[in-house]
Amino acid sequence: MPLTAEIIAIGSELLTSQFRDTNSSYLTEQLNQIGIPVSMRSIVGDQESNLKHAIRAALDRSPLVIMTGGLGPTEDDVTRKVVAQTMRRQLVLNDDVLQTIQSRFTGRGREMPANNARQALVPSEADVLDNANGTAPGLWLKQGQTTVILLPGPPAELEPMFEESCYPRLLEMAGSRVLMRRLYRTTGLPESVLDSRIGPIYTRYKNPETTVLAKLGQVDVHLSAAARSPEEAESLLEEVGSQIDQELGDYVFARTDQELEEVVGMYLVMREATIAVAESCTGGLLAQRLTNPSGSSRYFQSGIVTYSNQSKVDLAGIPPLLLEMQGAVSVEVARGLAESIRESIDTTIGVGITGIAGPTGGSEEKPVGTVYVAVAGPNGTSHRHFVFPGRRDKVRWQSSQAALDMVRRHLMDM
Amino acid sequence: MPLTAEIIAIGSELLTSQFRDTNSSYLTEQLNQIGIPVSMRSIVGDQESNLKHAIRAALDRSPLVIMTGGLGPTEDDVTRKVVAQTMRRQLVLNDDVLQTIQSRFTGRGREMPANNARQALVPSEADVLDNANGTAPGLWLKQGQTTVILLPGPPAELEPMFEESCYPRLLEMAGSRVLMRRLYRTTGLPESVLDSRIGPIYTRYKNPETTVLAKLGQVDVHLSAAARSPEEAESLLEEVGSQIDQELGDYVFARTDQELEEVVGMYLVMREATIAVAESCTGGLLAQRLTNPSGSSRYFQSGIVTYSNQSKVDLAGIPPLLLEMQGAVSVEVARGLAESIRESIDTTIGVGITGIAGPTGGSEEKPVGTVYVAVAGPNGTSHRHFVFPGRRDKVRWQSSQAALDMVRRHLMDM
Repeated sequence: MPLTAEIIAIGSELLTSQFRDTNSSYLTEQLNQIGIPVSMRSIVGDQESNLKHAIRAALDRSPLVIMTGGLGPTEDDVTRKVVAQTMRRQLVLNDDVLQTIQSRFTGRGREMPANNARQALVPSEADVLDNANGTAPGLWLKQGQTTVILLPGPPAELEPMFEESCYPRLLEMAGSRVLMRRLYRTTGLPESVLDSRIGPIYTRYKNPETTVLAKLGQVDVHLSAAARSPEEAESLLEEVGSQIDQELGDYVFARTDQELEEVVGMYLVMREATIAVAESCTGGLLAQRLTNPSGSSRYFQSGIVTYSNQSKVDLAGIPPLLLEMQGAVSVEVARGLAESIRESIDTTIGVGITGIAGPTGGSEEKPVGTVYVAVAGPNGTSHRHFVFPGRRDKVRWQSSQAALDMVRRHLMDM
Repeated sequence: MPLTAEIIAIGSELLTSQFRDTNSSYLTEQLNQIGIPVSMRSIVGDQESNLKHAIRAALDRSPLVIMTGGLGPTEDDVTRKVVAQTMRRQLVLNDDVLQTIQSRFTGRGREMPANNARQALVPSEADVLDNANGTAPGLWLKQGQTTVILLPGPPAELEPMFEESCYPRLLEMAGSRVLMRRLYRTTGLPESVLDSRIGPIYTRYKNPETTVLAKLGQVDVHLSAAARSPEEAESLLEEVGSQIDQELGDYVFARTDQELEEVVGMYLVMREATIAVAESCTGGLLAQRLTNPSGSSRYFQSGIVTYSNQSKVDLAGIPPLLLEMQGAVSVEVARGLAESIRESIDTTIGVGITGIAGPTGGSEEKPVGTVYVAVAGPNGTSHRHFVFPGRRDKVRWQSSQAALDMVRRHLMDM
């Protein structure tokens, strides 16, 4: 059985909306680093019956079970008791642990409350993990092939304990196994189309495991390979990744977790190019995204948001007659915005966007979601016409995504 | 058996450290609102065996099981199949669903990829929940006393579906108890200051329950009262709410879930006022937020993003000498931007923002986070000086929030 981990976070407060279980995220990251994938995560309240049920199920299916929380001194801290019952161990008062807890209190000139003695109860044949930052010790138990680790809930206690007492032992257990990942970020292909292209590739491989994840205007392909060495993992990733990469071609805009605007920024810096934008329906979103990366002042000069028709005339020099003849939402106006802002600010690239974000303003000919994007640059001016689905904010986001992608493609060809 | 819920989030990506399962938090909050506690939450990957195991365990112990994710069109979207197997139902191709999916594609002039037909497979005797924002329909199944709900993973699809199709049915299942809520949204007071003001009020009451929730640049106070009738709930809310409202005064910008930019938009419409903005460090964020609400073309005329110094001169007419003497980040430039954009576009209100978003560009005198905001209007020009904590994106957000609040206060006094 390959070493996979299951994490159970214990505490009724984690099942309310005010609290977040950050320990499981932390442990997932730590475990992944040493090549142990996490197969399941649960959050269980303090009710003994639910906890018993959850622990029994975890012991049945997972070779490594890590539990967090419920080791405190109060009545509702039931982890120790339920684990002992489920694993058929006796709870024994551990003198060393009791002494450590007592000395923590006397060290601060206080008496140990009777409650805290409960924290010195240890299931038989368990290893005690020292807690340098609190009273509840951690516990490490073996049952046949299964390893069970109990850690205290407060992150300030859990994290040092995990790193000092668990990480080295788990690293050894994991053998020299490594887990390595690859990421391909794409824009411009719908999830289903992308999947019909690369599904035939990745479904032939169990290792690396491939996950396709769609966001608005973006589809990410994650590969994750487990191997005995970094070289072996890298070669597994390369075998599948290179095929996916080739199939997706220039729809891939990043092979790291960079955002599209960061990639565009990188190209702008590489080409020593500058950019200015004139946008209508996106209302400033494109400028905002282009200036998200720190250091964007190297390439971003200025933007104008020409929301009213008058401002398209005043700020971007669009002829009033053109607005009247073609309408504000038209190829001609998009191209005019791109070319005019490029010329007036004297930048390498100019971008123009005009469209109908909705919910009102659509017509039969130009429905809500109609957007024209134009990019003017050293290679001339190109434009595209889109009809984006969804509500106002989605239309705006997809417009900015499409504009950034057009700029990326323009820069790639420069 | 009291109605308690169990949530299973499905997707291997949720078991990596890059992703966070936000759906379960959302559902927990919604369920708690109508008096349904959550007894357990799990995250399971796409492996069928683990998923089967988890679903079977959940059906054994919980009267209400909500699953999210894994309803997409790809190979690794296994939820439908595994649920049907576990609940011993056949998967039947549902013609209505198929037609809806097909028309979503044809509506955009595209052909439906064969993959998407998979999303029309429905377990027998399941109610289909319409998805207004995507192709995957939700499903509602009954098995004896147990209710099982399947929802799509993307929050933009899940949340409207839950609120439209599930919330009313669950409310009925939870009994006739009425739960009513009030909300006070504030900006300008840090959470700790706000809490020290209203804590002495709300801690005296268990019903309504009061929750203080801080976001960046905003603190929301939620009141939630449970009662046998709407009148009783309303009177409980009024008793505590009126005291809180009075204590917080005009820091409260909304008593509904409106965003600050919507409130500002409402004031602009009420005052028949127009607005234009000239922003530097926020890079278009203020314009973007002001144009977020639909109908914003009634008041928003135009914006300029004067990122480079040259564009402050060219687009906003800031004298080069002023930039040299005072620096681009100064009271004088903020006021100049506000007044110049107001005059050139001829609007009621003009806003200017200049600052240092970081991470570079700070000095001892003007550290990262230094931001000047000016608002010019019929009552003259006012300005404020801020030093916001946090990273680049946080500084930018807080700047836009402060600018919107200054506009709100200017409009209130008009």
